[in-house]
Formats: sequence, structure tokens, C-alpha cells
Amino acid sequence: MTTPNLATDEVSKIAKESKIASRRLLVANTSVKNQALLAIAQELEKRQDEILAANELDQKEASSLVASGKIAKSLFDRLKLDKVKLAGMIEGVRTVAALDDPTGKILARTLMDDGLELEKVSCPLGVLLVIFESRPDAVTQISALALKSGNAVILKGGREAANSNLALVKAIKVALEKFPEIPTSSVNLVTEREQINALLALDSYVDLVIPRGSNELVRYIQNNTRIPVLGHAEGLCHIYIDKDADIEKAISIVNDAKTQYPSACNSVETVLIHKDIARDILPKLADQLLAANVELRVCLLTKELLKGLEIKEASLEDWKTEYCNLVLSIKIVNTLDEAIDHINNFGSSHTDSIISENKQTAEMFLNSVDSAGVYHNASTRFADGFRYGFGAEVGISTSKLHARGPVGLEGLVSYKYKLYGSGQIVATYSGVNAREFKHKILQK
Amino acid sequence: MTTPNLATDEVSKIAKESKIASRRLLVANTSVKNQALLAIAQELEKRQDEILAANELDQKEASSLVASGKIAKSLFDRLKLDKVKLAGMIEGVRTVAALDDPTGKILARTLMDDGLELEKVSCPLGVLLVIFESRPDAVTQISALALKSGNAVILKGGREAANSNLALVKAIKVALEKFPEIPTSSVNLVTEREQINALLALDSYVDLVIPRGSNELVRYIQNNTRIPVLGHAEGLCHIYIDKDADIEKAISIVNDAKTQYPSACNSVETVLIHKDIARDILPKLADQLLAANVELRVCLLTKELLKGLEIKEASLEDWKTEYCNLVLSIKIVNTLDEAIDHINNFGSSHTDSIISENKQTAEMFLNSVDSAGVYHNASTRFADGFRYGFGAEVGISTSKLHARGPVGLEGLVSYKYKLYGSGQIVATYSGVNAREFKHKILQK
Repeated sequence: MTTPNLATDEVSKIAKESKIASRRLLVANTSVKNQALLAIAQELEKRQDEILAANELDQKEASSLVASGKIAKSLFDRLKLDKVKLAGMIEGVRTVAALDDPTGKILARTLMDDGLELEKVSCPLGVLLVIFESRPDAVTQISALALKSGNAVILKGGREAANSNLALVKAIKVALEKFPEIPTSSVNLVTEREQINALLALDSYVDLVIPRGSNELVRYIQNNTRIPVLGHAEGLCHIYIDKDADIEKAISIVNDAKTQYPSACNSVETVLIHKDIARDILPKLADQLLAANVELRVCLLTKELLKGLEIKEASLEDWKTEYCNLVLSIKIVNTLDEAIDHINNFGSSHTDSIISENKQTAEMFLNSVDSAGVYHNASTRFADGFRYGFGAEVGISTSKLHARGPVGLEGLVSYKYKLYGSGQIVATYSGVNAREFKHKILQK
Repeated sequence: MTTPNLATDEVSKIAKESKIASRRLLVANTSVKNQALLAIAQELEKRQDEILAANELDQKEASSLVASGKIAKSLFDRLKLDKVKLAGMIEGVRTVAALDDPTGKILARTLMDDGLELEKVSCPLGVLLVIFESRPDAVTQISALALKSGNAVILKGGREAANSNLALVKAIKVALEKFPEIPTSSVNLVTEREQINALLALDSYVDLVIPRGSNELVRYIQNNTRIPVLGHAEGLCHIYIDKDADIEKAISIVNDAKTQYPSACNSVETVLIHKDIARDILPKLADQLLAANVELRVCLLTKELLKGLEIKEASLEDWKTEYCNLVLSIKIVNTLDEAIDHINNFGSSHTDSIISENKQTAEMFLNSVDSAGVYHNASTRFADGFRYGFGAEVGISTSKLHARGPVGLEGLVSYKYKLYGSGQIVATYSGVNAREFKHKILQK
């Protein structure tokens, strides 16, 4: 069972349905949305055998592709579902039901004049397009986040997980049938790779694209759509060890940021060290990293300070590389400014940290480094929606518009201005005898 | 005196300088920024003769182009400066100095754990590119708003105002020389039309484009850049007169919204009338509008109800047209839902108003219409940053991401997460003996 190869106009039909559904969702209240999420959790539980059977089918098809080298082993691993994993996914849906509704929040209120009140209120974005690879767990998590925030969602999953995804979406749609306020077309699934480009062209229907997958996928999407994209193509994070750093903290933090989960986007790729502390810290730092199997690529001066050790010299390319692996580049800098400039020039504006006991130096770093996350004496690995306490993570954004850094549910909403009048016209407030506005801030 | 025709690489050089300036601006404090704005105001005053002389030169060159039909009369009118207008521009700069600094605001604070505090702080965007036609007053206003919000700005003015703009930017740069914290390259000017495309390609240097000008200009820019655009190509606003409308209010509001300033983006283009009230309101409404020289284009039923009057029937094209003129289309609808659907399908998500004495109906309209501004018993003409009480208006956005509706200074900022630690690593919070986060909300 795989989806038929839909033509572009069928993708467009799906998008149109999603838009219509999103308009209905604008008025679905919190209680209905939460009930629907709980019903979805229940339906997923009821259908777990069916879902796991569909996943086994996907696994069977995929395993032959792994054998022939057509898909990566890591992709295959992410595809696999079992009872425990599915239970976790279902629990995740219930967790989203328990989160605060990000819509309908009054963000500001102004009394423009007597009987003329302006309200700024958060509201859904409309239609989300989420593009992801293999992981079927993305289906339930994303659908839950989208519904909670009053958005319709088009899920573009990988073909290798088509059966699993279809079974999951079927459960979601069946559950939604009980809720007339939430159209079943609030969640739609597309599985063919060929349809990505057709989807990316639908800027009149889709309000936001969220790519979840490899840097290559994200970059491809950013380069091929006019729809705003929430995500990041790169996580090239730095740690700067200041001359006033506590050496123990510095070593512990670099070690954590590099080795705790090297393939994460928030792991460190380049460590910059102030020249005045380099001689003291480098031997110890290098020892620890080499013991943890980290390959070092270093500047000439570092190489000299570490002579005797078998270490590669870094090239210009190294300062630009997100290794996603147990590789770290190290550079000695002469000043704080040099460190800041290096980060602003070579970084990806994701997360960068300074290690220093000097608060003034740290504050200068935090203000001058133009990144979504700027840390003082902490591992870059903290850049994560759950660690930040958001309860859910939609993605990490390196864009400066809309949402930046780890993004929770509030990244899926916009706002609108509601003006409550009693017959007011602008002419009253214009010309020679213009009435003055009161502009009394009622809520800020 | 006109600028030399700069080549693409010179535009790129300007953009690079702007980026470098923007990094310095990240740490310029409020007091310095305000002092610089006041110094700019003073310098403009000192140089007013020079500025007005430059403007006369522009006027002279332009008047021959008006005569030969190469530029529009309206463009010529906007180009003109005199002592009074210049004084207003200077006053405008001082007004911006007096506004709240939108950067450095702590938007949220979370105690992640003891000694590990997360702060969400507003910060500048970086480099703004503002593209405008003729009006030299845009130079001072935009520069003031950009500097106040800690952004560098590249001004792309019209060639017809090149001398005026150069004189104004010169005054600004001279004033900035006294402030080492604010590089003179924080404000740059480009005047050649051929350079627009080169500028629009600079997505690695420019963080936001703000087009100020015709709908065609805005649409061209939206279609030709990957840089986020703040603005709106269209203002196709509606008023829906509900069956429970107060007829006097409705007529007064429609009249205001259509005739008070017909070329404004927030003027009304289409009035929808519930069938149950159409017979009562239409004759009076039509009388008033026709008396105000408004051309009506109406649906068949309206035409019938107004028979005897010489009125044109509307075509499908009319529902999609922003007249920007004394033309109004009128359609009778059967239900509130039909009105909402019409607006969501044909509108431009700018500003739409319902006239009704029924609060429930109004609330349904306000929640269901997917526009930046949704009004109850008020003229659409209120959609304006100054009327909203923002103190300044950067533009009106019909995008749902970042800023929506009239945008004040806060539309020119982003935010970053500052994490203040004391040596924390992620490993502590992972695995079997994971320490739990506290996630205590200190400020929301």
C-alpha cells in the first residue's frame, strides 16, 4: 500500500482543502482542540497493531534498500517503530494537549478614544507545510502542535515511511471525525518526493514551511520557495575561552559541547582561545579531547604549543565547516574583538558561548555576537526548546525575522489587531478641528 | 551633481560596510543613539539652505521631465521641499529620539536551574534596505527609525531626488562623525535605479527590505528577492454591513472609508451588505456616495434595488481590484459566512470591518476574517501606526510572519537568547541520573 503518484494539481487540491480547513480552525476553541488531541491519542492506541504492521511493511521494503545501499542505515533506524516508541509518541500528543494554547492571547490593549479600543491578539498562522524524512514520530508530534495552535498542516513524509505515515494519519483523521469544528482535512499527508517542488510553489496557500531533516534538505527548501521557512541549515557553534576563563569550567564545557552528542546542531565546531590563556589550557584541553577520540584541526600557533602531539593544521575551510562529528577546530585569537569578528564572520548565528570570569567581557561578547543564542559559562548544547522550558520544540531558527533560536508553540502563531468601535470615523480625528486620540495603554 | 553609476561590486561594498556598521551598532546604548539623533536634527537645521538648494536643482531637472511626460506630476509634488516641510522633517527626527528604545528589552526570563538563567532580549535586526520613490522626507524619517533601533540602513532613493537625498545624507553623516559608537556608514545612500537588483541579491548582508512606494514597486521587490520584505502590495479592504447594523453608523463609516482619502491603502474598495438590510440601506448609501462623486459597481441584486440610478454592474475583476480612487464595488450577501468567505477569498488581508449591533456576530467576523486588522463599527481608515498610538510607522505589513498590520519601531528588532551560566554542561541533565531543570518563569 503506497500513495498513488499525485499530479501537481492534486497537490494543489490538497493545499486548497488545507486552507479551507485552516479558516474553520480560526474559531475552534481551546477545549475542542484539546479534546480532539486526546481523541487522537486514544485512536492511536486503539490502532497500534495496525500502525506497527504498516511500519513493518516499511521496514521490510527499506531493509532491501539498505542492503543495496540505496538508503542509509541511520535513516532505517529512525524509521523503526515498536510498542514502546509508539507509546512515547502517544504520550507526546497528550503532552501537547496539556500545553498552553498559544492563540487568543491578548498581547496589548490601547484605548484609542472613548469607545474605541484596540486589541492585539495572537492567532493561528494558517497552513503549515512540514517536510521531514523517515521518522514516523514526526507525524504525531507535528500534527499535535499544528492543531493545538489552530493551524492546518500538510505533512510531507519520506516515501520509505509511507505505510507508517498513512496509518498514523488515518488514525488522526478518524479521531477528528467526531469534531465538526476541526475538519479532517486539517491534517493532510503527501508522500512522493516529486511533489516537494509542487508544494513549495503553493505560496498562496501555505503560510510557513518547516523542514525537518538534513542540512541539505533545509538548504534546498530555503533556496526553492517564496514561502517563509522556519529552520536552520547549519549549526556552526563556537566557544570562546577568554583570558579570564576558569580553566576547569572551560575544559568541561568544551568537552560537553563537542562529545555529548556530536551530530547535534548545537554541538561546538570551533573553539577560540585568547592568547594569554592558551599556553595554560591547551595541553590539558587537548589531552581530554584526544582521549575522547576527538580529531583536532588547529591554527599554527596552537600546533606549536601542542608540539609533540600528532595534530592536523586547520585550513580556511575548517573555520567554515560544521563537522557534525568528533572533529574540532581550534584557533588562538589576540583579543575579544578578534573572537567576536571570527564568530560573526564564520558562524551560522546559531549558538555561541564565552567562558570567562569577567562579567564585563562576557556582556560585551553576548551583545556583540549576532547569534540566536549567546551564552556565558555554559555549554552550547543547551540550545533546545525543551531545555529552555518551552514544553515543545517546533525547530531552531537562525532567521532573525518572526522566530529566532529554539521555537516553541508560539512560533506557529501570528497576531491580528481587533478594533472595537462604536461608529468612529477618521474624519473626526483629521483636519483643523481634529479630535485628539487618547492612546491610553491598557495592557502592554 | 548626481551620483556616479556604481557597479554591482560597489553596491556590494556599501552593503559590506553597512554590515560592519550594524555590528558596532549592536552595542551603542540608548543615550548615545538619542544624542546622535538630536545632533542630526541640529545639523539638518544648520544646512537647510544647502538642502533646499539641492532640492531646487532636483525640481528643475524634474520639471522638464514632467513637461515631457517622463515622470508623473504626483511624483514631482512629493519631491518638493520648502522651509516648512524641512522643519517638519527635522521635528520628526527629534520625535524619534523621544520614543522608547525598542532594543535591550527583556521579553522573558526563566531560571533553568540555580545559576543558569535564560533571558530573551530584543536586539537590532542588522541592516535594513529601504527603497523609496522621490520623497526626500523618507531619508530623515527612515534614518532616524533605523538608528533608534540600532540598525544600519541602506537608502535607495529615486534618481529624481538624488541631489536632495545626497544633501540630507551628508548632513546625517557629518552629525554622526561626533559619535565614534555610531559609524558614519550606518546610513548609506544609493540612487541609481539599475542598482535595485544588485541590492536585492545581497541576502547575506541585508536583513530586511522595506519598500515604500507604489504597489507595483512592492510587488516587484517581493518577487525579486530572498530577503524578507516588510510591506504590502495591496490594500483591498472591505466593510460588511450586517443585518443588525445601525444604518446611520454604516453610512457614515462607508463614506469615511471611501472618500476621506481614497488613494490610501486602508480605504475601502468593496462593501458587502446582508440581504435583509440591503433594501433599507442601499438608497440612502448610494445617494451619499454618488453625491460624493463615488462611482459604484454593483452586483445584479443591488442594481435592481437601485434601479433608476445610472450604475454599472460589477464584474469578477471588480472584487479583485484596489481602486485607490473614488470607485466602490457593492455586493449583497445572504449570510455572514458568505461575507467572510468573500473577504478571505478576494481581500488582501489588510483591514476589514463589520458594522453590526450584534456583538456575537461581530466577534465571529473578527475571528474568522484572516486579516491584519479586523474592526467592529469603525472605519478601515484607522489602520495606521500613528492612529494606533505607535509614535512612528515603519510600514503596514500583510505578511503573517514577524510583523503584521501597522508596524512601529518594534518591527525593526529581533531578539536573542542570553544564557547566563556558571559552568553548566548538558551531560548533567542527561542519562540515568539526570538532574532536573527547574524552569521557573521569572518573567513572562
